[in-house]
Amino acid sequence: MKKITVLGVTGSIGTQTVDVVAHHQEDFEIVAMSAGHNIAKLEEIMELLPVRHICVLEKADADALAQKYPECHFYYGAEGLNTIATLEETDIVLNAIVGFAGLLPTINAIKAHKDIAIANKETLVVAGHIIMPLVKENHVALLPVDSEHSAIWQSMRGGQHGEVSKILLTCSGGSFRDKSLEELKGATVEQALNHPNWNMGAKITIDSATLINKGLEVMEARWLFDVDYDDIEVLIHPESVLHSAVEFEDTAVIGQMGTPDMRLPIQYALSYPHRMPLVNAKRLSLADIGTLHFKRPDPERFKALPLAYRAGKTGGSMPCVFNGANEMANALFREGKITFLEIVDLVEAAMNAHEVEENPNLDRLIVIDEWARDFVLKKVEELHAAAH
Amino acid sequence: MKKITVLGVTGSIGTQTVDVVAHHQEDFEIVAMSAGHNIAKLEEIMELLPVRHICVLEKADADALAQKYPECHFYYGAEGLNTIATLEETDIVLNAIVGFAGLLPTINAIKAHKDIAIANKETLVVAGHIIMPLVKENHVALLPVDSEHSAIWQSMRGGQHGEVSKILLTCSGGSFRDKSLEELKGATVEQALNHPNWNMGAKITIDSATLINKGLEVMEARWLFDVDYDDIEVLIHPESVLHSAVEFEDTAVIGQMGTPDMRLPIQYALSYPHRMPLVNAKRLSLADIGTLHFKRPDPERFKALPLAYRAGKTGGSMPCVFNGANEMANALFREGKITFLEIVDLVEAAMNAHEVEENPNLDRLIVIDEWARDFVLKKVEELHAAAH
Repeated sequence: MKKITVLGVTGSIGTQTVDVVAHHQEDFEIVAMSAGHNIAKLEEIMELLPVRHICVLEKADADALAQKYPECHFYYGAEGLNTIATLEETDIVLNAIVGFAGLLPTINAIKAHKDIAIANKETLVVAGHIIMPLVKENHVALLPVDSEHSAIWQSMRGGQHGEVSKILLTCSGGSFRDKSLEELKGATVEQALNHPNWNMGAKITIDSATLINKGLEVMEARWLFDVDYDDIEVLIHPESVLHSAVEFEDTAVIGQMGTPDMRLPIQYALSYPHRMPLVNAKRLSLADIGTLHFKRPDPERFKALPLAYRAGKTGGSMPCVFNGANEMANALFREGKITFLEIVDLVEAAMNAHEVEENPNLDRLIVIDEWARDFVLKKVEELHAAAH
Repeated sequence: MKKITVLGVTGSIGTQTVDVVAHHQEDFEIVAMSAGHNIAKLEEIMELLPVRHICVLEKADADALAQKYPECHFYYGAEGLNTIATLEETDIVLNAIVGFAGLLPTINAIKAHKDIAIANKETLVVAGHIIMPLVKENHVALLPVDSEHSAIWQSMRGGQHGEVSKILLTCSGGSFRDKSLEELKGATVEQALNHPNWNMGAKITIDSATLINKGLEVMEARWLFDVDYDDIEVLIHPESVLHSAVEFEDTAVIGQMGTPDMRLPIQYALSYPHRMPLVNAKRLSLADIGTLHFKRPDPERFKALPLAYRAGKTGGSMPCVFNGANEMANALFREGKITFLEIVDLVEAAMNAHEVEENPNLDRLIVIDEWARDFVLKKVEELHAAAH
């Protein structure tokens, strides 16, 4: 029986984790979980699974829930998150919190010797240089949950680490993969949220449309699999059947294919090193799909990708700026305050304005993340002021 | 240092094995090898690598070579083959002899506790029920060399045996994959030998055109990987990029991709569980290839495939009849004595005429193989007599 803490349980990854656990209650138990403001969804999950330790964002919510469910323990805020991420009985923390906010609980969980199933890619992008040594030092496992990184991880079983020559990171191309640069200028939030293959949260769906998400994944892969940026190749693959692949030094390419179902990488992270049936899953039929396409990404239309390589190769505090600027720009786009193309322009502007720090610690990362967000916010205010 | 006996060294697999060994002389040594009548090629290989034990088909050739190369030991015929397959210093026997003739040396090598790298699929098709218990009993490894089976074997690393739900065996479709049944009627030997993707020996190239080869591979896979016939699916995949794949119970499909280069599976069988650089190999570029196609085989045009499933599921002596009848029909087609479509018709006729034996021993298999060949030969003579 693996005992799990799920951080971000009401989101897309969180609810699918609940589905996986609900179908394998002889193998998995959620002992603790966290939510933000979506208390209705949280209560639904509490009805489905008997979870005892629950953290929410606000004290008021925690107090109200404690009245209603006297058999459970309720916590709130950053301290509560820390408590359930380091709970004595927890074996594995599945971190599905979106964005930079996922960093601190991850660090605390590692220090408490918990294995980490990581759906929060920002953690590694921003602080890979802090996380990876911690993982090693505390002898914990860092298990990918992103479908691409899970595919790479599964493919890695085909050889040994020193035998890897390249990682092939596939990319659906997002909602706008077939749009021209001209068409992208007028792209709306509704269009961007209409992802062709995957049903995901709003922030990541926008990140998919800009290809910022793929850029974050490149940096995540660099840390998870200890490869050079020059050995990570992004391939546009509209059908999302090949979830990613690994090329070994004998030229064999091992890849993982499947239908687009996030429950597979979630379950694999929990069941590893074993596999188990994925209940109600659709099996892949290559004959029914018929054709798979692959092409190189267009660096003109999707400049987020070369920008991500630049951030990654520069290293130090630059990935933190890339991520922080994007989190703000992504939010501003969703609020209708900037255009689609301005998202990446703002990330680039923040990177250009940033003086890199080589080895920022956690405190510095928090400051730099804040700086990048502020930079974007001020830049947008300037632009709007100039327009009036 | 792995010490290798190569059976059938002058053929397509044999010469590519020599290439692999020549590039990794610090890891591999060919201590013994066998050839048939191609003495010129054999001498070329002797110039490249210092092999000490050599077996040929004819005593006259062995005697002549012994005069010319006094530093080497020469053997001939079936007994010679047995000697080099069981040589004290040999660790692994790579069996690249074509057809039923590869069976006896394989059995002898296993009994002498040699690991077997098996390029001779007929061995398993005909005598899987004898070979597999022997392999287990003698604690030797049976390493696939066929590109598809190597791909399956590599993909199997992605999980454990009990977690496999299906094998996806890909098939280029051979030289005639786009031809109609009408066009197949007049197909010539030259057309059949013009394989679109792989450069292989003549017998196997014809077997690819009829899809007999894929049928033999289905039966080979059944023995190598201990799966039910109903869990082996053949997929037509003209580009031969996905060399085969395995579906696990969580619906993850792990596959091995690559350029068509038989040296990869040969080297992997020798280097396993490690990988090593494949010298002068072309790396796969999915972006350059752009499109991969998959479809179900057409059982009307290529009835060899349903026939192979029938032979395999019937079991006992039936796969021996399927194989023996085909070996003769394939040869007769290459000699211009029968038409392309008659190859599989003759295999079917032999199967229909055969009374199945449930658990034939080696002696019975030799008799049944002979019977199937004779059946085809006589049937063709009857047809020709009737035509005059």
